[in-house]
Amino acid sequence: MNQPAPVTLALDAMSGDRGFPVVIEAVDQLVQRGVDTAFIVVGNTEEIRSAWTNVPSTVSFVDAPEVVTMDDNPVDALRRKKSASMRVAIDLVKQGQAAACVSAGNTGALMAIAKFVLKTIPGIDRPAIMAELPTRDGHLYMLDVGANASCTSDQLYQFAVMGEAVASRLMGKAPRVALLNIGSEDVKGNDAVKDAAARLKTSAVNYVGFIEGSTMFDGDADVVVADGFSGNVALKTMEGTALLIGSFLKDAFMRNAGAKLQGLIAKPSLEQLRARMDPRAYNGASLVGLNGIVVKSHGSADAIAFAKAIETATLEIQDNLPATIDRRLNGER
Amino acid sequence: MNQPAPVTLALDAMSGDRGFPVVIEAVDQLVQRGVDTAFIVVGNTEEIRSAWTNVPSTVSFVDAPEVVTMDDNPVDALRRKKSASMRVAIDLVKQGQAAACVSAGNTGALMAIAKFVLKTIPGIDRPAIMAELPTRDGHLYMLDVGANASCTSDQLYQFAVMGEAVASRLMGKAPRVALLNIGSEDVKGNDAVKDAAARLKTSAVNYVGFIEGSTMFDGDADVVVADGFSGNVALKTMEGTALLIGSFLKDAFMRNAGAKLQGLIAKPSLEQLRARMDPRAYNGASLVGLNGIVVKSHGSADAIAFAKAIETATLEIQDNLPATIDRRLNGER
Repeated sequence: MNQPAPVTLALDAMSGDRGFPVVIEAVDQLVQRGVDTAFIVVGNTEEIRSAWTNVPSTVSFVDAPEVVTMDDNPVDALRRKKSASMRVAIDLVKQGQAAACVSAGNTGALMAIAKFVLKTIPGIDRPAIMAELPTRDGHLYMLDVGANASCTSDQLYQFAVMGEAVASRLMGKAPRVALLNIGSEDVKGNDAVKDAAARLKTSAVNYVGFIEGSTMFDGDADVVVADGFSGNVALKTMEGTALLIGSFLKDAFMRNAGAKLQGLIAKPSLEQLRARMDPRAYNGASLVGLNGIVVKSHGSADAIAFAKAIETATLEIQDNLPATIDRRLNGER
Repeated sequence: MNQPAPVTLALDAMSGDRGFPVVIEAVDQLVQRGVDTAFIVVGNTEEIRSAWTNVPSTVSFVDAPEVVTMDDNPVDALRRKKSASMRVAIDLVKQGQAAACVSAGNTGALMAIAKFVLKTIPGIDRPAIMAELPTRDGHLYMLDVGANASCTSDQLYQFAVMGEAVASRLMGKAPRVALLNIGSEDVKGNDAVKDAAARLKTSAVNYVGFIEGSTMFDGDADVVVADGFSGNVALKTMEGTALLIGSFLKDAFMRNAGAKLQGLIAKPSLEQLRARMDPRAYNGASLVGLNGIVVKSHGSADAIAFAKAIETATLEIQDNLPATIDRRLNGER
């Protein structure tokens, strides 16, 4: 966990749906904004160099001939693609060449490779994926959103400790931690959730109780803990519902000439709404519980979204996230 | 499963958040619309009668001195409140006095009492709750949305068979059945989901594969099967997201005088959107897998919403739903 100075990030340039052009554009945007981070761009160096007009001085390259695809089985990607951009980028973190890695690639493969190469923090059974979601008055962090399809109460407890550690740094306040459940009464839910609640109540975690999807965005919780199955269902149902409402909104303003005119007039307010729901503003899910910082960008992220994921990784470097989690967890044991 | 003629419904008038006035108003609305169903209104007969101006001729009363509250433990409600309106209404179905029961009460208590009194259809381990949700071009049915906090692959399979049976009648077409999962590939998900998928692939069910929350509302599935935990999370996250977007929309159109004017001008289109997302249009979740028809209304339902739940129950009576499920399941065995 030694940080090279200045802070250096390894960027997997090849694994996203849109390829390396997005990574070039994101880095250019950040450099233009005066960000002084150094970047190691990992991938097909020749192609990337030739496509990049005016490579910034803070950018260096490491060549990686292979690419992990979205269809690759995680285990195969781990075993066979040892010179893939994703693997090389994570290796750079392990070797201390980079303080964090950002990738828009296959989530399962990223998790498998990161876990194998970086290992988990002592006391953590499995890493989790932590995502940022909008709320009425800000945002919340949810974990796990997909790394662990079934979880024990021990894992849920570990997620709570990790989520609190990360959120306290990223939010700059003592976060309120809740467990995602299907009711607010003690008797509700499955055994894992009930047992985790009992344990959290007597822990040092700032645990505020069960929360349901219907009230999750009201702003009463900063960290929502869930098993990777229901957390992923919640995350994706939110996305699906936003798309559904977006299509209903479009239908409503396109149904006839009068409605189209209304839509034109209301455009500034509708743009305001769009900006607040813009998934790019929340891009960058953290793989937490590893001895190293790995941030997963959405596969189809554009440059603005990828730049957001890079910023999240940078914040986590400043906070030395793995060390923070380690300390919290040791304090709890 | 003998149906009295004309069709008679038992209405639990006491257990909803808004009490019997909602039930009175819903029945009045249906009678005004020419619905020829007969209603047995169960509850505090004296109070209800005195509050009801012009009781329709199709309405009769059965007195029930007790009420199951939202805080009642399901087991206590089942054991101790044998003269509660909820219990009496379900007893009327068991006795053949009513062809179905509609209640806006405590879901857990309703499920426990209905299961005890009516019993499950042979081959069904546990009943499920099936809810209707909007999609881009229509609607879908999801089950289980909360009766079973953990489910085996056998149960998921039974939910698929039941969901297909109900939806084929309510939709008037051969429904496409999908399993809610956290990815579309075979390797994704927990064991219960993977095993259920393997079984559904070789069954007579019109199974179309895994579906994710992000694409669930695109119109590619008519029945979405889930365990009661993740199904409930999906349902409530949809509700929470709709509320969140509603509040963002309000913020956008209230942020200054110009935006307020835009909102006034766009009001007809925004009302169009509101109507399509109106939860009242989807009120009425069916308890499926029982030897009898029980429909659960949202606790805070108003008269329009409660009337929708009554209409769902009426459709299920016309289709003799328990017999249909029984036949499908026997055909499958």
